[in-house]
Amino acid sequence: MARERRGRRGGGAARRQRRSEAAIRAAQVIENRLPRVEILDEEALERIEEAAETVLEEIGIAFPDNPAALARWQAAGADIRGDRVHLPHGLARSLCATAPARFVQHARNPERSVEIGGRSTVFAPVYGPPFVRDLEGRRRYGTIEDFRDLVRLGQMTPWLHHSGGTLCEPTDIPVSKRHLDMLMAHITLSDRPFMGAVTAPERAADSVEMARILFGEAFVDENVVLLSLVNLNSPLVFDATMARVLETYAAAGQACILSPFIVGGAMSPVTEAGTLVQICAEVLAAVAYSQLVRPGAPVVFGAFVASIDMASGAPTFGTPEASRILWGAGQLARRLGLPFRSGGALTGAMLPDAQAGYESANTLQAAMLGGVNFMLHACGWLEGGLVASFGKFVLDADQLGALHTLARPMALDEDALALEAMREVGPGGHYLGCAHTQARFRDAFWRSGVFDSRPFETWSEAGAPDAAALAHARARRLLADYEAPPLDPAVREALEDFVARRKAGLPDSFT
Amino acid sequence: MARERRGRRGGGAARRQRRSEAAIRAAQVIENRLPRVEILDEEALERIEEAAETVLEEIGIAFPDNPAALARWQAAGADIRGDRVHLPHGLARSLCATAPARFVQHARNPERSVEIGGRSTVFAPVYGPPFVRDLEGRRRYGTIEDFRDLVRLGQMTPWLHHSGGTLCEPTDIPVSKRHLDMLMAHITLSDRPFMGAVTAPERAADSVEMARILFGEAFVDENVVLLSLVNLNSPLVFDATMARVLETYAAAGQACILSPFIVGGAMSPVTEAGTLVQICAEVLAAVAYSQLVRPGAPVVFGAFVASIDMASGAPTFGTPEASRILWGAGQLARRLGLPFRSGGALTGAMLPDAQAGYESANTLQAAMLGGVNFMLHACGWLEGGLVASFGKFVLDADQLGALHTLARPMALDEDALALEAMREVGPGGHYLGCAHTQARFRDAFWRSGVFDSRPFETWSEAGAPDAAALAHARARRLLADYEAPPLDPAVREALEDFVARRKAGLPDSFT
Repeated sequence: MARERRGRRGGGAARRQRRSEAAIRAAQVIENRLPRVEILDEEALERIEEAAETVLEEIGIAFPDNPAALARWQAAGADIRGDRVHLPHGLARSLCATAPARFVQHARNPERSVEIGGRSTVFAPVYGPPFVRDLEGRRRYGTIEDFRDLVRLGQMTPWLHHSGGTLCEPTDIPVSKRHLDMLMAHITLSDRPFMGAVTAPERAADSVEMARILFGEAFVDENVVLLSLVNLNSPLVFDATMARVLETYAAAGQACILSPFIVGGAMSPVTEAGTLVQICAEVLAAVAYSQLVRPGAPVVFGAFVASIDMASGAPTFGTPEASRILWGAGQLARRLGLPFRSGGALTGAMLPDAQAGYESANTLQAAMLGGVNFMLHACGWLEGGLVASFGKFVLDADQLGALHTLARPMALDEDALALEAMREVGPGGHYLGCAHTQARFRDAFWRSGVFDSRPFETWSEAGAPDAAALAHARARRLLADYEAPPLDPAVREALEDFVARRKAGLPDSFT
Repeated sequence: MARERRGRRGGGAARRQRRSEAAIRAAQVIENRLPRVEILDEEALERIEEAAETVLEEIGIAFPDNPAALARWQAAGADIRGDRVHLPHGLARSLCATAPARFVQHARNPERSVEIGGRSTVFAPVYGPPFVRDLEGRRRYGTIEDFRDLVRLGQMTPWLHHSGGTLCEPTDIPVSKRHLDMLMAHITLSDRPFMGAVTAPERAADSVEMARILFGEAFVDENVVLLSLVNLNSPLVFDATMARVLETYAAAGQACILSPFIVGGAMSPVTEAGTLVQICAEVLAAVAYSQLVRPGAPVVFGAFVASIDMASGAPTFGTPEASRILWGAGQLARRLGLPFRSGGALTGAMLPDAQAGYESANTLQAAMLGGVNFMLHACGWLEGGLVASFGKFVLDADQLGALHTLARPMALDEDALALEAMREVGPGGHYLGCAHTQARFRDAFWRSGVFDSRPFETWSEAGAPDAAALAHARARRLLADYEAPPLDPAVREALEDFVARRKAGLPDSFT
């Protein structure tokens, strides 16, 4: 960890200039001014919520192997049968009332702290793939060095607000220990907010401990510094590991995304409305439970939705049903007054090809217009989430830049209305040279940092690179230009000590 | 023309089955139930309209080489200075009032007639490229046989509602004659509505004549059977050829799209609001002029908008500014009570790669949510419109299928809410086998007709095809399965006679 700099291309001055541009341009959250797509009317929303209440009362939600949870629920007035919790109409909703509508997740660099909720949109990279597609286009198991490179790429991306969590599985590190190395990578190689471990409650506890070393105990007691992904086991199961992870984070005042992970037709009904009913029931129960553990615990209404190819059984992404369910789920989240997580640059494509482009753009657009507050998988996702792709990371991140422009308010002052420019240019004229254009041409339009807009002949002479090739070239440049953000050496040493001590006490388990 | 069938692959029965599926599934227009993205509030719209009125009054719009137009304007109360028409506040708007809010464009197969306006969305293919990228991926000048193949592909595409116009330039036919061959291809190889010629007023007249032969004179007098693309020469010029083409069609009661063709920063101010002001002024003047020629003439509010890469000067597509201007222009069109044309599967990409996917999806999504009524370039557009790509035609058309699902209302009956299915499956269960899913699995989700959703290993063994390769394979299959829709032999003969007579009187000019 002593040296974060990587092999370079180009001189130091060029590198510094590029880096400082990145620093200047690094965006905080998006203040999303887009009108939200509201696909359901009031009556439809009430029908879905009412059906969700019926599901919770009649069918209930299972909390297997978790007597403490059942006891909490019983004390709160639920009806317990076996490991199933049946919630009378209205109970879950009333418990949800103490969950905050928005909160700040702090970064070690205060300029990188993000607000989760309200009109904010926060982009975080891909989460969870066991495989990577590397810069040579090879598909292979991910390693801790891939993980670190993905953190570095994220740190170099001006349009990403969050360092994320399990960018890829570092399969060369024992499962029992890899959370420690992943956290160290996020903490030392990025200065953005990051996510905690969720694979076991003790790993969540480790995440809180490392956050305390980084931010100080008092700060962590009073502030959110970790946002972690707690998936529900749809349909209608909150498994014991996930529940205990939530308990750990909630007890420490740290935030969790409570997210049904749904492939429609497999983990939820095959209809859009049925899937929304189930999402609503599951999130209601999970958020209610978080508030039983600690009233006021910060949580996010999550909805990860894919559809299914009924011929092959494969999950599909970027489909119209997924967009529509996302829009409906966003409406349900806002009615509950909770921050909303969904979307991402999702695709079933095997390669960063046209399919990847269509499907990812479909999901990104839907998420922006659906009022998503926290967008996990915003870049790098490939092959239905099995693969973290370096090329697609860069391509998606470029699109995230465009979304910053998409979401801003439109200027409508005299200057923007440009009557003077029209008078200057007149019928049949050309605006390129006029004063109005010259004063603005540098920042007038969002500009891709990847695509080649030169003429056909120039592009052909350059070897006719496709978008994936251009992305790989850009990723190499970004990694070459990377420098780690400064970190207090005493803090780093304390973190390294903690990790070394914890590792010494853990078995080398790969399962 | 005697034999439209092409070399086949697979048996006749399989071909007939595929064809009949296409026929059954062939969609009419989309009834677009999506809420529209309204990015501008009432005050903003009023500011833009007011500025547009000021432009028309102070700067005016030029009608060069068109004394008849100037005379019409003068009679209507405009102030003429040279070839510039200055319109007092309110004049253009009041003239626009006679333009219909919606109309039907008839197809020779009545089941393929489309409504233009209201909640309808109509998809038409790419228009205008001089080049094609063929099924071997070669980029070359387009020919009449390419043109015919693109018509055939369109006819085989269930999600396309319209046969379009200049699918590619048939550069092997003299300019003076090619409109006749293009019209023959649309009329004989497709049974969908199509567009008329606009390169010269006499070619527009030929289009009307051929339509009269096809539909009968009385029918054409009373109904819209041609919808043609009249581009304005932005900024603020209505050139004489275009104006006379409009005059020809309007006099015959046929429809025109009146479309500023704008690369922002070059043909319009570099600001979004300024571009909207100019679009509003140009369309107001053009629609007003159409109503001077013939009150009640059917017209469409067009807005083709690209932005510009200020470094290379190249137009760019699928950018956030273009989406935002599209949304604003849609609002302006609806306030004028006119059908709206914009959008398409636009991209600056050289290849049907990831860039093409992102940019095209961005524009398609924006157009659907912007309430576009007529979407030209909905499939096949590549390289900023210089190239008609067979592969991208198929990829885009597949996405158009998804948009049909995106735009429909959500079912919310008991059956859709699926409580019975949730009761049957219960916590921890699986929906794939349940009765509710089994009854719906065939049509539950939109399914791509191009992408491969098989597992990685199967896909690898199949040669690891990317989306472009899959699209080329599908295009070959569609062309092999193509059969021309039936056409009365007497009508065909009359059309062939007309074309032969007209061609005999025309020079072989290639410019």
